[in-house]
Amino acid sequence: MSGTAFPPDRYRRITDGLGRLAGGAGPSVLIQAEAVVALEALAHGIGLAGRPVLSIESSRYGRLSTDWLRAAGAQVTALELPDGEAADPQRVDDLLRAEPDTAAVVFTQAEVLTGVAHPVDDIVEAAHRHDAAVAVDAVAAVGGLAAPRNADAVVIGPQKALDGPSGLSVATLSERGWALLGRQDETFASVLSLPYLRHSARDQGVPGTPSVPELEAAERALAAVEAEGIEARITRHHAARAAIREGLRAMGLTPWVAAEQHANTLATTVEVPADADARELAGHAVASGGHWVYGGSTKRGAYLQVSHYGRRATLAHVLGELAALARAAGHFADVGDAAEAASEAWHTAVL
Amino acid sequence: MSGTAFPPDRYRRITDGLGRLAGGAGPSVLIQAEAVVALEALAHGIGLAGRPVLSIESSRYGRLSTDWLRAAGAQVTALELPDGEAADPQRVDDLLRAEPDTAAVVFTQAEVLTGVAHPVDDIVEAAHRHDAAVAVDAVAAVGGLAAPRNADAVVIGPQKALDGPSGLSVATLSERGWALLGRQDETFASVLSLPYLRHSARDQGVPGTPSVPELEAAERALAAVEAEGIEARITRHHAARAAIREGLRAMGLTPWVAAEQHANTLATTVEVPADADARELAGHAVASGGHWVYGGSTKRGAYLQVSHYGRRATLAHVLGELAALARAAGHFADVGDAAEAASEAWHTAVL
Amino acid sequence: MSGTAFPPDRYRRITDGLGRLAGGAGPSVLIQAEAVVALEALAHGIGLAGRPVLSIESSRYGRLSTDWLRAAGAQVTALELPDGEAADPQRVDDLLRAEPDTAAVVFTQAEVLTGVAHPVDDIVEAAHRHDAAVAVDAVAAVGGLAAPRNADAVVIGPQKALDGPSGLSVATLSERGWALLGRQDETFASVLSLPYLRHSARDQGVPGTPSVPELEAAERALAAVEAEGIEARITRHHAARAAIREGLRAMGLTPWVAAEQHANTLATTVEVPADADARELAGHAVASGGHWVYGGSTKRGAYLQVSHYGRRATLAHVLGELAALARAAGHFADVGDAAEAASEAWHTAVL
Amino acid sequence: MSGTAFPPDRYRRITDGLGRLAGGAGPSVLIQAEAVVALEALAHGIGLAGRPVLSIESSRYGRLSTDWLRAAGAQVTALELPDGEAADPQRVDDLLRAEPDTAAVVFTQAEVLTGVAHPVDDIVEAAHRHDAAVAVDAVAAVGGLAAPRNADAVVIGPQKALDGPSGLSVATLSERGWALLGRQDETFASVLSLPYLRHSARDQGVPGTPSVPELEAAERALAAVEAEGIEARITRHHAARAAIREGLRAMGLTPWVAAEQHANTLATTVEVPADADARELAGHAVASGGHWVYGGSTKRGAYLQVSHYGRRATLAHVLGELAALARAAGHFADVGDAAEAASEAWHTAVL
Repeated sequence: MSGTAFPPDRYRRITDGLGRLAGGAGPSVLIQAEAVVALEALAHGIGLAGRPVLSIESSRYGRLSTDWLRAAGAQVTALELPDGEAADPQRVDDLLRAEPDTAAVVFTQAEVLTGVAHPVDDIVEAAHRHDAAVAVDAVAAVGGLAAPRNADAVVIGPQKALDGPSGLSVATLSERGWALLGRQDETFASVLSLPYLRHSARDQGVPGTPSVPELEAAERALAAVEAEGIEARITRHHAARAAIREGLRAMGLTPWVAAEQHANTLATTVEVPADADARELAGHAVASGGHWVYGGSTKRGAYLQVSHYGRRATLAHVLGELAALARAAGHFADVGDAAEAASEAWHTAVL
Repeated sequence: MSGTAFPPDRYRRITDGLGRLAGGAGPSVLIQAEAVVALEALAHGIGLAGRPVLSIESSRYGRLSTDWLRAAGAQVTALELPDGEAADPQRVDDLLRAEPDTAAVVFTQAEVLTGVAHPVDDIVEAAHRHDAAVAVDAVAAVGGLAAPRNADAVVIGPQKALDGPSGLSVATLSERGWALLGRQDETFASVLSLPYLRHSARDQGVPGTPSVPELEAAERALAAVEAEGIEARITRHHAARAAIREGLRAMGLTPWVAAEQHANTLATTVEVPADADARELAGHAVASGGHWVYGGSTKRGAYLQVSHYGRRATLAHVLGELAALARAAGHFADVGDAAEAASEAWHTAVL
Repeated sequence: MSGTAFPPDRYRRITDGLGRLAGGAGPSVLIQAEAVVALEALAHGIGLAGRPVLSIESSRYGRLSTDWLRAAGAQVTALELPDGEAADPQRVDDLLRAEPDTAAVVFTQAEVLTGVAHPVDDIVEAAHRHDAAVAVDAVAAVGGLAAPRNADAVVIGPQKALDGPSGLSVATLSERGWALLGRQDETFASVLSLPYLRHSARDQGVPGTPSVPELEAAERALAAVEAEGIEARITRHHAARAAIREGLRAMGLTPWVAAEQHANTLATTVEVPADADARELAGHAVASGGHWVYGGSTKRGAYLQVSHYGRRATLAHVLGELAALARAAGHFADVGDAAEAASEAWHTAVL
Repeated sequence: MSGTAFPPDRYRRITDGLGRLAGGAGPSVLIQAEAVVALEALAHGIGLAGRPVLSIESSRYGRLSTDWLRAAGAQVTALELPDGEAADPQRVDDLLRAEPDTAAVVFTQAEVLTGVAHPVDDIVEAAHRHDAAVAVDAVAAVGGLAAPRNADAVVIGPQKALDGPSGLSVATLSERGWALLGRQDETFASVLSLPYLRHSARDQGVPGTPSVPELEAAERALAAVEAEGIEARITRHHAARAAIREGLRAMGLTPWVAAEQHANTLATTVEVPADADARELAGHAVASGGHWVYGGSTKRGAYLQVSHYGRRATLAHVLGELAALARAAGHFADVGDAAEAASEAWHTAVL
């Protein structure tokens, strides 16, 4: 119906390239809209089966998934986690034992807002032990953390650690993942139907009207990842995580996520000392050239957050954020120690 | 959650500018996805009320609306029209008299595939006489035909007569239009909820992550329409319609849509003579430099289709398509008459 | 000195790709400025030798070359041609016989303003018979006319029949062409020194700071030419020339350039009838949707000009211009004949 | 001659906007080529007068100006300065006293390669005392250092501290500056004639064919400077200079340019300790994530160089470069002191 053309083979290469970065469980589909649309489609499709689902909620996106699953008819057990707390695979195991008919476990691999990263591979193993499929939102992880192994459905968007556009996303599903969506008729057109989208891409090459600028931006992002190497890209994000956490500790502050392996590599959160006002502290840090924002608060107190993904996953960026926070916190004397610790951690990580 | 920023006032201006071109019944919302997503959201929202709806089907999009309405719970009366036949307001009146509880009439203002344009204002009047609201898909009409008057919901996309991007769309709804969607909770996030989108734009300025290249392309399209004047843009499309129809007649061919006022100004369809093979004829026309495609066939026979919208709504484009078709049809001697008739019709129309 | 990078191999491919389209006499250089700068550099370099040069002036660019040659020290014989008159190889032969020491013949292959195309291969032969080198400005010919054979220096820009950017140009020179510039020290940096530019490209890969958007636009233009095929591109321009000339004749008008083989394929000029005002006629044609402009006037009278190059080298564009002119000229009855003649000529040419 | 259009008023606004940033001595002209072309044109025009000129050479560009001036006919006194040494206004005064007929002093305001910034206002005063005009290459200063006061000709390009495109440049000249070019006939077309360019812009609005992507990039750069404020932009560059110099000192290294007021704010150079190999040290710094390059060497030894202009004029960038150099230098223990000193200097400067 349109005059805009985009070569189907390029469309396919973009889909497959992003799908591979997502773990490449099986055939991938490209959604020409923000990743939140792909996430809604996935939750909606899973929910239609009307079976029990375990939804691990570690942020707003987790809560949205619960809503979408329920609205579509699933019986959802929601595992609500405090901000920044990683899911415990044992707890997942227990909940699945309690509800053996659970069709799927749905969760977000890592959060930029709270800085947490869940032990995705352990959760997948636990779920599979109980014959439940696993659907993962990896938007805030892909490119900075290893892709989930053996997950049944993974949704990514290229706008964070991949330095790509925000207007498209990709879902990659294993055979079992596609089976989760078995209630959706692949010939019924709907933005909330991944089976329709797959059918339609197979049929038409490029489903719908291609958004050329978005597709070209995705191509450039993929080319840049290929040039750097996905391993090197992930290592760079790990180095950023190590550097900023060591730097924070050296200046007397405490990372909000205690265990490094549970901390996201794309963003870091830090405890606000009890005697400080969190929003004021963030404001001072921004006035000092940083990008810290008030993250949230729980019973443990309040925390600030800062991102360090994509082209900002550099030692320079980390040092700048540490210096800004040090100045804001009045721990001025500590910026030197922070820089030294951060620099050492960075270089150890990238070796 | 993103690093991409877009000024809320620019976002609002794009939304309102496109909303005005759609007829501006009331508050508009911008959907960062193809228009088909906005159409699904509208039909889904209307359907949720579970009330009778009259769906006028003049092409695939009409049939999709019927599907979406039914899937959401509406009791749909489908008025199926043969390709290229305009809806008869009297027929609409009759159907609404037969089902006085009808909540809404849903249809596509004009089609590019079959070349038909429905008498939208008369249908609105008929519907309103029976206290039914009206929801219009104006994607293939906006910029080339006058915007619907007094419709309750209008969806447009800028990718055709507005020469804009295809990755965003706008819905403009009257108070009554918004009331049609009253079953949707504006705080429940969903790509299929226009009320949520309106709420979210009000709340956050720019809902979700802005797709900057798409928004900038929409801005450029709006600026170009403003520079030309929307009246002049519509006149130019009317001239293209007049020119190509007169040209076809002069070379002995019959426009598929008999009455000019029921013919779309963005695309024209023509009867394939009984002794010719439609797909072969289209192939020859393309080989002769044209862009005619096989359109479809009904009991009346087969037809070809060609577009002439946006920057191709010119006399030159029309003459080129006539010459290609003349050559393909072997009516070679007639290209001169076609050009003369088309040229006269064009200039009469733009006076 | 800059932070902008551009891969030397891509830079080289663009240079060589454009150089091949220019006839590829020998090593090419890319100039990051409008083609007029390359032309000035070439004339300046030739002029520095202080030897006799024959400059064929068929438009402003020819006169500029004469000026640049003289300013640099050449003894220039200027062969001034009336607008639209092709150079006569016999005349060139005579002039070279009269000045046997002539180092070079300098001229413009084809003009868009007057619509003339000189018999470039015959002129090259005449010049070589007298041991003079040949330097050609092919900006308004490349992509629409065959590249000069055996010329010693050819300058092109991609902004016309190649549908490319205007901010860069390429010069391709044979060994003899480079020898013409022998007075320039290749280590002396100057925008007017092609030898320096060649030296610098060899040395640094990308001389100076690359203008990335211009280079990328040139790449896209080259890819489009490759996709269409340079032969097909040239044929398309020949068809446009044939079509518009036959159309003009059919409506009773006279092409300004009498012989088709001397008419440029990128633009056409037409005599203004003695009883008409040329500027008024052009104005009416523009008001009728055309793009005719007042071209100039000589003892023979006045002429109008219209372009039909690159993506406008189509039958549709030609028909549109004929219809606009017919209407402006009041020869309205003739538009049919014009269209018929143009269409036939087009299709004969593209067979 | 072209189909590309660019509104003359936008062209004028870009010209004037950049001209104002250059000090705005008088009417400005925009050159659609790299700044080196504008510099050659200026030197060529000055040189044509055949009068004595004092050329202060602090880098390759200064030596090029000497060459261009001499080639055009000027009697040049060249004041060669060792890398990184600022010109002494007293020395300039002496040289002008010795050659009272000197028409102009020509020099580069600041260098990114050697990190020096000359006392431009003092040099202007000295020159004017002796009735000599002053022509300044401010490409590597504009946006990071105050514009020259009362200079007679200033050339800038937007590609460094203005974060703009590299394919265009602007020259702004006072009445006296234009008089320096009095030997050039403004009606003689040449890329080396600023008077012709001014004449042609006055005459045609946009001289030649506009390079739209370059012009649009310049507009965006100007808008960004306006949004930040030129004073704030310059302050940010001063802060970067202060921060990196204090950081280097804190880690036991010596800035190559001794006096801060003679150091460029866009780039910094540092002495390589006598026992280290300069190229090896730069290589290690790059391997550690920095961007240090071997700068050059003089009798005083060798130096490294790093840039910190435009969007890299941040504390984060400076800290990253210090950390990389510290690691490369093996002075690892000192990165903390460097960061502390740099951070304090930065914040003191931006207060």
